[in-house]
Amino acid sequence: MKLGLLTAAFPELSLEEVAAWAAGAGYEALEIACWPAGEGSERRYAGVSHVDVERLDEEGGRRIVDMLASHGLEISALAYYPNNLDPDDGQRGQANEHLRRVIEAAPKLGVDVVGTFVGRDQKRNVPDNLALFERVWPPLVEHAERHGVKIAIENCPMIFSYDEWPGGKNLAYSPALWRELFSRVPSASLGLNLDPSHLVWQFIDYERAVYDFGDRIFHVHAKDMEVNRDGLYEHGVLSSGMGWQVPRLPGLGDVRWDRFCAALYAVGYDHVISVEHEDRRFEGTEELVKRGFEIAYRALRPYVA
Amino acid sequence: MKLGLLTAAFPELSLEEVAAWAAGAGYEALEIACWPAGEGSERRYAGVSHVDVERLDEEGGRRIVDMLASHGLEISALAYYPNNLDPDDGQRGQANEHLRRVIEAAPKLGVDVVGTFVGRDQKRNVPDNLALFERVWPPLVEHAERHGVKIAIENCPMIFSYDEWPGGKNLAYSPALWRELFSRVPSASLGLNLDPSHLVWQFIDYERAVYDFGDRIFHVHAKDMEVNRDGLYEHGVLSSGMGWQVPRLPGLGDVRWDRFCAALYAVGYDHVISVEHEDRRFEGTEELVKRGFEIAYRALRPYVA
Amino acid sequence: MKLGLLTAAFPELSLEEVAAWAAGAGYEALEIACWPAGEGSERRYAGVSHVDVERLDEEGGRRIVDMLASHGLEISALAYYPNNLDPDDGQRGQANEHLRRVIEAAPKLGVDVVGTFVGRDQKRNVPDNLALFERVWPPLVEHAERHGVKIAIENCPMIFSYDEWPGGKNLAYSPALWRELFSRVPSASLGLNLDPSHLVWQFIDYERAVYDFGDRIFHVHAKDMEVNRDGLYEHGVLSSGMGWQVPRLPGLGDVRWDRFCAALYAVGYDHVISVEHEDRRFEGTEELVKRGFEIAYRALRPYVA
Amino acid sequence: MKLGLLTAAFPELSLEEVAAWAAGAGYEALEIACWPAGEGSERRYAGVSHVDVERLDEEGGRRIVDMLASHGLEISALAYYPNNLDPDDGQRGQANEHLRRVIEAAPKLGVDVVGTFVGRDQKRNVPDNLALFERVWPPLVEHAERHGVKIAIENCPMIFSYDEWPGGKNLAYSPALWRELFSRVPSASLGLNLDPSHLVWQFIDYERAVYDFGDRIFHVHAKDMEVNRDGLYEHGVLSSGMGWQVPRLPGLGDVRWDRFCAALYAVGYDHVISVEHEDRRFEGTEELVKRGFEIAYRALRPYVA
Amino acid sequence: MKLGLLTAAFPELSLEEVAAWAAGAGYEALEIACWPAGEGSERRYAGVSHVDVERLDEEGGRRIVDMLASHGLEISALAYYPNNLDPDDGQRGQANEHLRRVIEAAPKLGVDVVGTFVGRDQKRNVPDNLALFERVWPPLVEHAERHGVKIAIENCPMIFSYDEWPGGKNLAYSPALWRELFSRVPSASLGLNLDPSHLVWQFIDYERAVYDFGDRIFHVHAKDMEVNRDGLYEHGVLSSGMGWQVPRLPGLGDVRWDRFCAALYAVGYDHVISVEHEDRRFEGTEELVKRGFEIAYRALRPYVA
Amino acid sequence: MKLGLLTAAFPELSLEEVAAWAAGAGYEALEIACWPAGEGSERRYAGVSHVDVERLDEEGGRRIVDMLASHGLEISALAYYPNNLDPDDGQRGQANEHLRRVIEAAPKLGVDVVGTFVGRDQKRNVPDNLALFERVWPPLVEHAERHGVKIAIENCPMIFSYDEWPGGKNLAYSPALWRELFSRVPSASLGLNLDPSHLVWQFIDYERAVYDFGDRIFHVHAKDMEVNRDGLYEHGVLSSGMGWQVPRLPGLGDVRWDRFCAALYAVGYDHVISVEHEDRRFEGTEELVKRGFEIAYRALRPYVA
Repeated sequence: MKLGLLTAAFPELSLEEVAAWAAGAGYEALEIACWPAGEGSERRYAGVSHVDVERLDEEGGRRIVDMLASHGLEISALAYYPNNLDPDDGQRGQANEHLRRVIEAAPKLGVDVVGTFVGRDQKRNVPDNLALFERVWPPLVEHAERHGVKIAIENCPMIFSYDEWPGGKNLAYSPALWRELFSRVPSASLGLNLDPSHLVWQFIDYERAVYDFGDRIFHVHAKDMEVNRDGLYEHGVLSSGMGWQVPRLPGLGDVRWDRFCAALYAVGYDHVISVEHEDRRFEGTEELVKRGFEIAYRALRPYVA
Repeated sequence: MKLGLLTAAFPELSLEEVAAWAAGAGYEALEIACWPAGEGSERRYAGVSHVDVERLDEEGGRRIVDMLASHGLEISALAYYPNNLDPDDGQRGQANEHLRRVIEAAPKLGVDVVGTFVGRDQKRNVPDNLALFERVWPPLVEHAERHGVKIAIENCPMIFSYDEWPGGKNLAYSPALWRELFSRVPSASLGLNLDPSHLVWQFIDYERAVYDFGDRIFHVHAKDMEVNRDGLYEHGVLSSGMGWQVPRLPGLGDVRWDRFCAALYAVGYDHVISVEHEDRRFEGTEELVKRGFEIAYRALRPYVA
Repeated sequence: MKLGLLTAAFPELSLEEVAAWAAGAGYEALEIACWPAGEGSERRYAGVSHVDVERLDEEGGRRIVDMLASHGLEISALAYYPNNLDPDDGQRGQANEHLRRVIEAAPKLGVDVVGTFVGRDQKRNVPDNLALFERVWPPLVEHAERHGVKIAIENCPMIFSYDEWPGGKNLAYSPALWRELFSRVPSASLGLNLDPSHLVWQFIDYERAVYDFGDRIFHVHAKDMEVNRDGLYEHGVLSSGMGWQVPRLPGLGDVRWDRFCAALYAVGYDHVISVEHEDRRFEGTEELVKRGFEIAYRALRPYVA
Repeated sequence: MKLGLLTAAFPELSLEEVAAWAAGAGYEALEIACWPAGEGSERRYAGVSHVDVERLDEEGGRRIVDMLASHGLEISALAYYPNNLDPDDGQRGQANEHLRRVIEAAPKLGVDVVGTFVGRDQKRNVPDNLALFERVWPPLVEHAERHGVKIAIENCPMIFSYDEWPGGKNLAYSPALWRELFSRVPSASLGLNLDPSHLVWQFIDYERAVYDFGDRIFHVHAKDMEVNRDGLYEHGVLSSGMGWQVPRLPGLGDVRWDRFCAALYAVGYDHVISVEHEDRRFEGTEELVKRGFEIAYRALRPYVA
Repeated sequence: MKLGLLTAAFPELSLEEVAAWAAGAGYEALEIACWPAGEGSERRYAGVSHVDVERLDEEGGRRIVDMLASHGLEISALAYYPNNLDPDDGQRGQANEHLRRVIEAAPKLGVDVVGTFVGRDQKRNVPDNLALFERVWPPLVEHAERHGVKIAIENCPMIFSYDEWPGGKNLAYSPALWRELFSRVPSASLGLNLDPSHLVWQFIDYERAVYDFGDRIFHVHAKDMEVNRDGLYEHGVLSSGMGWQVPRLPGLGDVRWDRFCAALYAVGYDHVISVEHEDRRFEGTEELVKRGFEIAYRALRPYVA
Repeated sequence: MKLGLLTAAFPELSLEEVAAWAAGAGYEALEIACWPAGEGSERRYAGVSHVDVERLDEEGGRRIVDMLASHGLEISALAYYPNNLDPDDGQRGQANEHLRRVIEAAPKLGVDVVGTFVGRDQKRNVPDNLALFERVWPPLVEHAERHGVKIAIENCPMIFSYDEWPGGKNLAYSPALWRELFSRVPSASLGLNLDPSHLVWQFIDYERAVYDFGDRIFHVHAKDMEVNRDGLYEHGVLSSGMGWQVPRLPGLGDVRWDRFCAALYAVGYDHVISVEHEDRRFEGTEELVKRGFEIAYRALRPYVA
């Protein structure tokens, strides 16, 4: 396996600047943020565009690949995480369309993984959303198949406050739902961008998930999670994590990375573990963000080779 | 403390029949189901009417008390658990009105505790419901105060399926919410009918809850809960317990009754522990229900004196 | 469920004497030892004959059933635990033959469960024994089917010393082997007499075993097991339990009877839990044996109704 | 084993009144408080005199034994717990003298166990107290030997507040110290009145202690202990338990009575488990004390036969 | 955060020699031992003087700072740990006086933290010592305030043998006592030099302590602690750690440094974690001490950035 | 301590090639595979010959030592692991003879440790094998003594499939057996090459083993072990690990290397921890094997200095 990072944490840096720093810090791969260029970010960690996929041509792709290779880096995946099941037709249409652009860009960059969200109509329940998924997603998956791209769905529930209540903005958060999604759209090009942190606070055994879904793991996010015990006592699990789920850098939370990586090796995963940086204690300045990635690097390095 | 049971599990028996059997089985108190007489039950364990509070007069109350005393039984509380914050004005009005009747009946039966739900508009979020609570509940609590009655809110979230989704039919399910409710309607007559089973699957420490809310515990329900590990793995906590919370008889679940009772003694609780029977494995025939209560009795008896 | 005991612990008492004492102590059922009459016991707890099945006729059966009924007792199973795969043809033949007699006796006593061992050629490995099983057992199971009897195999490995080394005298000790046996002789009349104590020291999760084999559990033994930590450290699991597995009375060992019984209820088991007494600290005198059964009774009673 | 109680919890009742109630509640033995008659109690649970040993003659002893036998009770031990190493010569002399009287009374009552404390000069360190012990105790032990009496030292550190600081009033609180005491006064008549509750808050494994000191256990006290987690956090172990050790009734604390009794059986202990009632929540009225003993009885009964 | 070390472990080396080695080993800061120059050490790890504060002038301070900067090092704190509440007036006076000198030296070295002990009259109890503290410490704290220095009290109980019995030589060992001290001398310049190892063997939750006292943590010591289980069994907590508390290098003991550092980040601590080397297995030669610091460095580095 | 590796994982490389790579990867010592030259390997990880001991002379030894020193490497031990108690006289004779050659080679290479197996007649039980050991091993140990060599027996049971059933090919697998072996051949030259991984799946406490056998630990193997929970459930411990013991690289299994190394330091072990690579996920190509050793290095480095 190799150790990489998601570039979205560096909205102010150019891709080359990110590459230079990441390589210097020991990282071996980048997961490149591909939100639509020119858009501001509507939420933290989103909206970053390190490659403008709309305008990317073969030549441009080669240049990027070469530039990264000169730093000893490869691309692990392209990243674009919108609500692909947005109840607003316009919003959903835009999200789906841009996702197609990202898919088309991937081969130009020599990548075969695109990370995204299934999305969700947060006001509707799970069965209704499964029906919606079955309507919206088949053409997207076919588009990916046609371009030789695997779609890696991150398993984040996307619920952080009453703004997302009651249902969060991404349906693909539990093993039961993954089974359901894979059964309704049975394509080998649909899989997971597995992030163990979201399983920690859902009290789902991430080690077992690796064994159960080994052949569907197309990409891995390294983010950690601390369950605040006092907050859990006060609010309980019905608060959907509000008040007690605390994203931390890898090594500072409840994920046992030795066990997680051991499971990944056991199922034959041999791609990239990509650090996704969402620890509030290491944000606000570029220097803090970098310190965060350094801690992540040191915590994960022993297990990644 | 004394050991009692909630009569709702015996919809086919008269109060006297329940009393005779319960006393013979060693129970010392009854929590009497007081749903409106003549109504069928709209959900399991509801709708049972062992005292018709609408028609109860002083004389009738005395007769019931005497009958129970002849079996060595006392009444621990009157029980009526509707959705007191039903979004439908008519439904809510009926629930509130009948709750007033139950409150009025209590003194006639020599009881000072009435158990009920706060209720919830399940389609609206927590802050909206707190506002609704603040509007609906003050007159109900005043009514209770006037009749010398304490209202004991059971801490059941009342969410079992997508019918209740997204929010369940009772807001009072966590310590943070209890604090909020008690702060918004600051009456010493508003408290808890504490049931540890609902805390188990919310991953809330029930022992700590006893210490934190000792003076608000007006009544205690003994029901047990098993967290099905496979179901939790499949669905995670975002499913609101669906697929993995399994109500069990006291002694057959995850509640440590020794620790729970020890905490109750420590905070000075000296009223009744009332068995609420909702174990599907012991339902369907009167004989099975009775076997269930026997197991509950044996599991709790060592700690209740 | 009902609480019973295996009569083999009282070799000096008549069946009626056992019945009288057991009923007085609260027990509700007997599992009757049916070794060949007149034989001495070749090992502890074996060789006891409380019913002489060779000579039993319909009338004799009725008399026994009536006698037990007069004490409020029923028969949970007939018990005969020889090595049914003894490598010595004569020994194996005798064991098989007497097992047929016990099977024939069952209907005369109104019982439909006979408990026994699969047996094992201890000098041969598992695959060899499975082949042997496939040869010896089909006619025995057919015999049981013909008489409307279910054969309940106890899951004891029957290895206690170098006399049984290397393989023990009963093959049916693990879930993987149960699956294998049930697959090779696929009769609904072949199942388990599940004893959790043997799973404890094999580090097999007995609660999960109940869920996985619910419909194969024809009878249940209540015996407890303590894993001596110092002995385990000294010898490790390769000693096959020698030096650290300590049979104890129910309640004095590592089995959590609340969880075990909860699982039994969950899978719908509703027959007898039969105490098998093999605790060395409560042997030697009839009085000690009885004290042992009293402790077992008190430990199990809370969960059995 | 049998289940008994220490009579000191009933200072207002006569021995016969205690006996009548205890027998009715199921108890089978009494450990009789034998402080000097006519003294008030200087500390809680001390100073009670249910037999006036100074005046007891053979005839008086027989009458007491007969009275207790008429209730089905036996005497498990005589109890007198002063500071036998009091630094004040007069105090120590009186304590030692009265202890001799209790020893002399034992044979008259048919008892061979007297429970007491080693005592301690609380201002002096352990080595100094061991020297003191070596000087004071040999004649006391010889006196016991001469009368055929075994002295059972309770393992309570006797430190509850700054009044006892820095060292408590009883030296015999840990396995290392027991070894030291038994080595310095090597008499088979000196042993333990083992109370697991004092080991709980010292973080000493009581189960291992039973195995290590099996032949020195002359008597057993059943008292429970809860370690208050918040108090432990605030004060830590250097506070000598102050602020976090909470005596509870058996069944309401951290002692696992099943494991403790299992260990006692394993080492061959077959005398009495005597409930010592020091739970503040069940004091103040005779009725509360009795409720406490009822809980203790129910918690222990399953394991004592 | 940065990683540093306390120079006291190198009594034979000059400050520059320590600096050169520490920087080469990756350390980023030094906590400089400032005992009175010329004194021998009265106990292990004490008495070392790497800066002679009595004679330090502005110029000398600058030279030291520059020398360290040339190695890429900063000073995290000055260290002087005497018994500031010594019952002997002369001893206490000398300790207090030298502490004033260290405080005065700090600004000359560009440091604003001085680490020391509150001290204790070991023969007197906690309340008496609190009174003594209230008398002795206000002028010391005022002195620190005047010089812009924060006093960081290490939380070591300073009890290792009967020489310190009964009370140890430093009162500030538990959260309850910290609260008391901070309340009696309510200066923002009085805080903690938090060393989790001393909390481990007191059974105090060091993670919670970080959250509770976040704004009082002026400095952090990294030392580890192993609780020897056999020793704890033999002696119990009343031995004040004697016989079972074993100081170890960070990474070789019971402290979970990932959790501890995660808590430090969470409360906003962003100063130095300073390794205090007291592992007996890595003492005796300079080479062993250095190997010890190398292990500490590797154990902590992943979490410190 | 130093970190080394066993060269047997590189059968295709010359000793110098192994040395160059190992030194570059940070390793400090080699444990050299010394199977008879020219033999193919009969089992995985065996049969490798990096030094042809038959032909080694003083000069050749020096050349090897010098070559390794030029890479900064030392030799930790010579490795030859045959069945020294093979029931076949010829096989056993050959094994014993070659072991003598390895012993003789050690001084020529400046090494004083030779690692091997005691061996076992797998068809015979433990007592029989102990007798065999007592006959075969004294001359081997004397040979070692004469050459100033310590024999380090690895504690692997050598049972992986029914081919080794029933007993495995190495008797020295548990503390009880080590005691027995050391007592029957009481030479200070006979000790252990302690590998904690084999203790993990035997449920033997490896930390305690270090403390109990500290002075017999001549060499240490670093291999890790994962107990597959599902496999253990299916097969239980009577399967001798088959179906559930999974060798892993250090850091990817259940061994806590921090505790293990802390124990080694505590007993004064100061030789080499030698990585033995048997993780199937990192085999098949030289590149994979090297990646495996890199992970092992990173997992162990923090604790080895």
